Amino acid sequence: MPDLTGRFDGARVLADLNALRSIGTFKTGVHKPTFSEPHMRSLEWLAARLPDAGLAATIDGIGNVLGTSTKAGPKLLAGSHLESQNQAGWLDGPLGVVYALEAARVINPDPNVSGAVEVAAWCDEEGHFGHFLGSRSYAGAVTEADIDAARDRSSGRTMRDALRDAGLAGRARLRAEPGCHIGYLEAHIEQGETLESQGLKIGVVTSIVGIWQYRITFTGEQNHAGTTRMAIRKDAGLALAKFCVAIDAAFPALCGPRTVWTTGRITLDPGAPSIIPGGAEMLFQIRDDNPDVIERLEAQLRRMAADVTARGPCSVEVERIRTGVPAMMNAAFQDTIEAASAACADGKSIRMPSGAGHDAQVLATLMPSAMLFVPSIGGISHHWTENTADADIVTGAEVFVETCRRLLAG
Amino acid sequence: MPDLTGRFDGARVLADLNALRSIGTFKTGVHKPTFSEPHMRSLEWLAARLPDAGLAATIDGIGNVLGTSTKAGPKLLAGSHLESQNQAGWLDGPLGVVYALEAARVINPDPNVSGAVEVAAWCDEEGHFGHFLGSRSYAGAVTEADIDAARDRSSGRTMRDALRDAGLAGRARLRAEPGCHIGYLEAHIEQGETLESQGLKIGVVTSIVGIWQYRITFTGEQNHAGTTRMAIRKDAGLALAKFCVAIDAAFPALCGPRTVWTTGRITLDPGAPSIIPGGAEMLFQIRDDNPDVIERLEAQLRRMAADVTARGPCSVEVERIRTGVPAMMNAAFQDTIEAASAACADGKSIRMPSGAGHDAQVLATLMPSAMLFVPSIGGISHHWTENTADADIVTGAEVFVETCRRLLAG
Repeated sequence: MPDLTGRFDGARVLADLNALRSIGTFKTGVHKPTFSEPHMRSLEWLAARLPDAGLAATIDGIGNVLGTSTKAGPKLLAGSHLESQNQAGWLDGPLGVVYALEAARVINPDPNVSGAVEVAAWCDEEGHFGHFLGSRSYAGAVTEADIDAARDRSSGRTMRDALRDAGLAGRARLRAEPGCHIGYLEAHIEQGETLESQGLKIGVVTSIVGIWQYRITFTGEQNHAGTTRMAIRKDAGLALAKFCVAIDAAFPALCGPRTVWTTGRITLDPGAPSIIPGGAEMLFQIRDDNPDVIERLEAQLRRMAADVTARGPCSVEVERIRTGVPAMMNAAFQDTIEAASAACADGKSIRMPSGAGHDAQVLATLMPSAMLFVPSIGGISHHWTENTADADIVTGAEVFVETCRRLLAG
Repeated sequence: MPDLTGRFDGARVLADLNALRSIGTFKTGVHKPTFSEPHMRSLEWLAARLPDAGLAATIDGIGNVLGTSTKAGPKLLAGSHLESQNQAGWLDGPLGVVYALEAARVINPDPNVSGAVEVAAWCDEEGHFGHFLGSRSYAGAVTEADIDAARDRSSGRTMRDALRDAGLAGRARLRAEPGCHIGYLEAHIEQGETLESQGLKIGVVTSIVGIWQYRITFTGEQNHAGTTRMAIRKDAGLALAKFCVAIDAAFPALCGPRTVWTTGRITLDPGAPSIIPGGAEMLFQIRDDNPDVIERLEAQLRRMAADVTARGPCSVEVERIRTGVPAMMNAAFQDTIEAASAACADGKSIRMPSGAGHDAQVLATLMPSAMLFVPSIGGISHHWTENTADADIVTGAEVFVETCRRLLAG
């Protein structure tokens, strides 16, 4: 029998998270790529539990699960995602979904609360077929042609085939109705060590940083590694290494307090031990929530590239291949999370930007949105060892439920 | 009718080289991987011409072509190779074979010369199945088990299958007979621009440098490129870039006049734009003919690696994966090439090491060996645009024939 008393139950939250971990288990984490059998079973698990919270469940044509309420009063949308990165952790996604489910179970049956929490699991936040496909579909930003073109980044399988095999082909896709919700709330593990290192329990997210990405290409001259003297070489790989080191030297004086930058991939062409690379390429990423900071850093990148090209012997080209869109979280919602943290977590909260992307940045284009973080042990993320202490999971859930209650109370 | 007058014929040299270029043509170069149909046709082309030089032709069980003489007196072995790198130049290999053929055609019928030039085309100098397989087989350094294990580096086809398809399975492999030859002479394009840049015609090779190769591995900590602050990162890719730059700064003060070093391949692990690389690897190569120089440079590498590891945040490991064996060319032979250059090339010669490997380094383990280089236009090598001026080809051939004559005269 569903618990209709509307009491918060931390043990139930932990049991639900462990139930989701038992579907597609990988070591102490999970392996649930989008539309895989364990992912689909997780969606069905959620759909089967939504009625306990007084919600009618729908799994739509892109794999979003939505639990809707007929209760009178304001509706708050809450959720996260259920698929995982490959061989990754058990909480990245499910934590936010189970918190939303718990909030709905506690609040929706309560006759003293006007309104309800509606629960969402957005499909493919992890981007197996494309980033934020589910929430972007809900926002009306995914066309049928986008779906036709999408493929699994690991297997190359088309999204149409995956949808058909998952039994979702031909279903309608749910779309947000303007004014239907007072806002959106999402909880997530921090994926960093800010909270843990300061003994804090709740991160009140101020913004979700934008991601700017660059392809930086170095052109030299391919030649024989034995017969070409050092003095006349045009080694594109060496030019790349020097550029990385120059970035590392120049950026700290120009960046913001939370800016991060990363060279994630380097390729030398042709990449053979006996050939001087004639070409080299690096994928370079900057994240910040302030486009002014990015503008300064990108100008520095382009200045450095022009200098290197002018000096020789190699030329450098900087091409922006992704332009970040930082999302600001709703200020009143942030205050509410902070107040709930004061009530339920001894005030052990801090305001911080999110360095990772989340569905909340898509929902923020539709309605007031906010996020809260719970601590990640050792800051580990996107790895099966990712974890959060049980006590911190329960504290986070209490703060989440209390935040929902206060937001619905207006 | 074969030309039995024994006169040097530069036009014949050019015609032969062009005949070989017309087999397996690729743009202005050739594509003749080892045991390919155009490679086998080139071997047969050579075997069919050897009788013109009074030589009996054999194609042996590993694809070596050897032309042997019954003429009385000393025998000088001369040659190079006929297969090419993929989509590569027309002279890399054939030049030395045709020079040897021309020397044999000029010298062997001459009753005034005691002895003969014997001609070799060594199989697979370019290492499609393994480096210097033909000359090493001739030196007795290739076992049947080595052949069992060898595979085409491009297609993965086994060498046994390739030998069978080429019609060579079951044939005996020729072996050097101690004392049979007074020495070995090989001509090759320079593959660099030392000769061209100084207006010289002949490189008198002093040594063939050794190749030392290293796998340098950097270990940091893989993490999320958005949520991990710069201050706590352990970015293995950045550590690698700094190491490359440090090598570039430290080596010039420690190296020899002709030392070259190259980072040919860089790999970041996992190599994704949104992940801080936890591991990184570079393939690093040093070439020199002086092991003392290498010893200094390797000690520097290991010192730098220990320093980086001690300072953190990443650790570095240097592993030597190939140890060079420099080959010294015979001093008396070098003097003879220089004297022939004085006679036939206005003395426009220079002594220089070979930065590239050649079959002569294998033959040097069996008998006195030497090499001469002709200019490469623009220093271009291992590319279909590789070329040498016709006049320089002919001058080189004259010097080569004259060198053979003087060596046989003792």
